[in-house]
Amino acid sequence: MINTQDTICALATPNGVGAIAIIRLSGADSKEIANRCFSKDLLTKKSHTCHFGNFVSIQDELIDEVLLTVFDHGKSFTGEESVEISCHASPFIQKKILETLLNNGARIAEPGEFTMRAFANGKMDLSQAEAVADLIASQSRNAHNIALKQLKGGFSNELKDLREKLIHFASLVELELDFAEEDVEFADRKELNQLVDDVIKYITRLAQSFELGNAIKNGVPVAIVGAPNTGKSTLLNQLLGEDRAIVSDIAGTTRDVIEEELTIDGIQFRLIDTAGIREGAETIEAMGIERSRAKIVQASIVMCLADISIENNLEEVINWSKEIRASHPEKKIIIVGNKSDLSQKSTEINDFPFVSISAKKGEGIDELKEILVSTVISDFDIVNETIVSNVRHYNALLKTKEDLEKAKFALETNVTGDFVALDLRQAMYHLGTITGQISEDDLLANIFAKFCIGK
Amino acid sequence: MINTQDTICALATPNGVGAIAIIRLSGADSKEIANRCFSKDLLTKKSHTCHFGNFVSIQDELIDEVLLTVFDHGKSFTGEESVEISCHASPFIQKKILETLLNNGARIAEPGEFTMRAFANGKMDLSQAEAVADLIASQSRNAHNIALKQLKGGFSNELKDLREKLIHFASLVELELDFAEEDVEFADRKELNQLVDDVIKYITRLAQSFELGNAIKNGVPVAIVGAPNTGKSTLLNQLLGEDRAIVSDIAGTTRDVIEEELTIDGIQFRLIDTAGIREGAETIEAMGIERSRAKIVQASIVMCLADISIENNLEEVINWSKEIRASHPEKKIIIVGNKSDLSQKSTEINDFPFVSISAKKGEGIDELKEILVSTVISDFDIVNETIVSNVRHYNALLKTKEDLEKAKFALETNVTGDFVALDLRQAMYHLGTITGQISEDDLLANIFAKFCIGK
Repeated sequence: MINTQDTICALATPNGVGAIAIIRLSGADSKEIANRCFSKDLLTKKSHTCHFGNFVSIQDELIDEVLLTVFDHGKSFTGEESVEISCHASPFIQKKILETLLNNGARIAEPGEFTMRAFANGKMDLSQAEAVADLIASQSRNAHNIALKQLKGGFSNELKDLREKLIHFASLVELELDFAEEDVEFADRKELNQLVDDVIKYITRLAQSFELGNAIKNGVPVAIVGAPNTGKSTLLNQLLGEDRAIVSDIAGTTRDVIEEELTIDGIQFRLIDTAGIREGAETIEAMGIERSRAKIVQASIVMCLADISIENNLEEVINWSKEIRASHPEKKIIIVGNKSDLSQKSTEINDFPFVSISAKKGEGIDELKEILVSTVISDFDIVNETIVSNVRHYNALLKTKEDLEKAKFALETNVTGDFVALDLRQAMYHLGTITGQISEDDLLANIFAKFCIGK
Repeated sequence: MINTQDTICALATPNGVGAIAIIRLSGADSKEIANRCFSKDLLTKKSHTCHFGNFVSIQDELIDEVLLTVFDHGKSFTGEESVEISCHASPFIQKKILETLLNNGARIAEPGEFTMRAFANGKMDLSQAEAVADLIASQSRNAHNIALKQLKGGFSNELKDLREKLIHFASLVELELDFAEEDVEFADRKELNQLVDDVIKYITRLAQSFELGNAIKNGVPVAIVGAPNTGKSTLLNQLLGEDRAIVSDIAGTTRDVIEEELTIDGIQFRLIDTAGIREGAETIEAMGIERSRAKIVQASIVMCLADISIENNLEEVINWSKEIRASHPEKKIIIVGNKSDLSQKSTEINDFPFVSISAKKGEGIDELKEILVSTVISDFDIVNETIVSNVRHYNALLKTKEDLEKAKFALETNVTGDFVALDLRQAMYHLGTITGQISEDDLLANIFAKFCIGK
C-alpha cells in the first residue's frame, strides 16, 4: 500500500497553457513545506483563507507570484492538512514549483492518491470516490447526474438500507436457528421469505439498471448502415447539425473527434466509424452488409437505412435486419425509411422499430431521436431511481444476489442454519466491497490507478 | 472600448480534463451573481476566504460541489470584486457553470479582459500587463526571468527613471530658453549635452538588448546543415539527449513536437526542420546547399557540419559558409568539424567560430553548446540588466531615441527652443506608450486580443 504519511503534491488543473494553474499539497507537512517557499508566514493562517505573495525556489529565486490557500487537518478534500497553490498556468512555472516542493520534502502524488486519502480518512466511501472520476469524465447531463448523485452519497445510502435489511434478515435466521432444535413452528417464516424476496428483487433491479447506467456513462455506440445513396451522409448531418452548435461551446473547449458524438435528452450517442460517411465514401462503396460488419459488432444500436423511394429497398433492408438480429441478437435495431419526400406510400413494419424520414428536408428526425432515446432508457426513472453505472458495483451486486439466492434455497430446503448464515455473510461481504467497508489493497490500487495524477 | 461595467466570467485554467478547474468572475456584481448559484450566503464573507458548497443552476439543479473564493473590490487581481469558482475539471461542468453565470447576468470575458481591467484599475501598467502573457508563454529560465522582472515592475522603474531624466532635461532646456533672449552664456551647456548623450546611450542600450530579448523570448532558430553522412543525425541526438530527459518532466506535461527544442543555460534553441534528419533522410539526400536553403532562411544560427576525416570537406564547408554569409549577412554561422575521432590533424579557422567534435563519442559537444550560447548572449548581463523582449517596446524605444536625437541636433544647431521642446514632448510621449501612461483604445485592443480568454 502507498505510504500515506508523506506529504504529496501534484498539478490539479489540466495540462496546458492558461491563465491559472493549481498545484495541490496534502499531508501533515503541507503548510510547513509551502511556508518555506513563500514570502509570508503561512503557519499562523486560518483554514480556508488565501494569501498573495512570492513563491521562491530553494535557491531563493523568484518563481512566480502566487495565491496560496490553506486548509486545516480535517477540513480539506483529503481530510489532511492541505495547501493549494494558484500560479500562472505556464508549464515552466508549474514544473519549477513542483521541483521546489520536492526539494522541500514533498513527493509527487500517485494517480488518484488525493481521492484515495479522502477515502482512507473517511471523507467519502469507495463508491463516492469512484464517482469523482466519473463526474470529471461525464459528458452528458444524465452521466453527470448519476455521478453527482453517487458522489453525494445517494447510492451509498441505498446500500446502507440494503445492508440494514440484510442484518434484519440475518437476525431472523439466527432467531429461527435458536428455535430449530426445539422443533418449534417458526412464527414469521412468511415474513422471512418475503424479506429475502424483496431484497433479491431490489438488488436485481439495481443490477438491471447497469445496462442503462453503462450506456449513459460511456455513451451508446450507434452504427448507421445502408446501401450507397440511401442518404447516410445527409442523415448524419441532420442528426449532428443542431448538436454541433452546442458543441462549439462557450467554454471554448476543443477536442479531438474520433467518433461523432450526439447528445439527445441528456444521453450521449457515439456514431461510430462515420469518417467514411463524412467523406462521401458511400457513393463508391459496395452494398453495406460486408463493409458494415465491423461497425455492427461495435455498435449497441444499429440504424438500418432504406431508401423508400426505391422499389423493394425497404424489403431488402428488413431482410438484412433480420440477418443482423440472427447473428447479433443483443443489438437493438432501428429501421429508418429515408426519402419520404419522394415516396407517397405510407409504410408500417411490425418486427422492428421503424421511422419514416426525409433526411434532406429534416422531416421525421425528432421522431428518430425519440426512438433512439427510448431504445436506451427502458423503464427506469433516471432522475429519481438509482442507476448503477460502474461495472465493479454491478459485479458485486450480481455476487450478492447469488449469495442471497443460495441463502433462500438453503432456507427453503431446510439446510442447516450455519450454511444460511455463511451465505448471508458472503452477501454482506460482497455488498460491502461497493462502498469499501470491505476493501483489499489490490482492489484499491486498481481503482485509483485509473484516476489522473492530481485527483 | 469594451464595457468595463459588466461582470465578466471565464474559464481561467487550461482546457481539458483534470482534477480541478477555476472559473473566474470579476466586476461589481460578482458576489451577487455567485451568491445566487451557491448553497451558502456569500455576501457576508470576508475577502480572501473560501467556502465549500453546492453550485446550482438557475433551475435549481445541482451542478457540482465547488469551493468559492471571494475577493473584495480593490483586493483582487483585477482590482474589482471577484469570485473564483473551483469546480471539478470536467468540460461538461465548466460549461454548465458558465451557462449559469450567464443566466444570472454575467457575460463571457473577452481575451485578456481580466488583465486589461487590472491595467484600467491601476493594478499594473501596460508593460506589466504584457508581461503576464509573456510569463505564461515562457519556456526557458531566461524568458521566465525577463517576464517576471517585467511583471514585478523592473522595466517600469527603469522607464520611470528615464522619464525623470527627460523631465530634468526639459527643465534645463526651458532654463536655457529663459536665458536665450538675454544672450547670456549658459552655465551648464556641458551638463545638458552630457545628459542628452547619457539618455540616448541608455535608450540605445535598451533597444540593443531587444535582439537578445527577442531570441530568449521566442527561442533561437538553429539550422543544422551538411552533406550526407557528416553525422547530422548523431549530432542532433547528442544535443537533444540530455535535454530529452529533462523534458519528460515531473509535471507530466506533453506537447506536440513541431521542432526539436533544446534549452542550454536557460536559453531555448529551436532546431528547425529536423524531421528529415530524424528520419535518416540525410543518407539519400543530395548535397545540402539546395535542400538547406529554406532552413537557412528560417534560422538565426546556421551550424555547418563538416566531416574532417574526409580530405577537403572542411574547405568545402568553409567556402559554402562564405556563400551563406554573402547572401545572408545577418545569419550567425558556426562551423562544426565532426568525426574528430577519425582525424589526427588539429584544425583552426579564422573566419568563423569553429569547434571540432566527435558526435559519435560525445566529444566537443559542451564546447559547441557554449559557442551556441555565446552567439546569442553578446555582452548583456541577463540577470542584472533590463532586457527588452517586446517588439512594441523596442519600436517605442527607437522612436524615443529618434526624438531625442532631433532634440540634440536642434540644441547643437541653436534651433528655436520651441522645437526642442516639441521633440522632447514627442520623446516623452513615445516613452509613455510603453507603460501605458499614454494609451489609445486601438493599441489596447490590439495588445489584449493576443491574450487567451480567462486571463
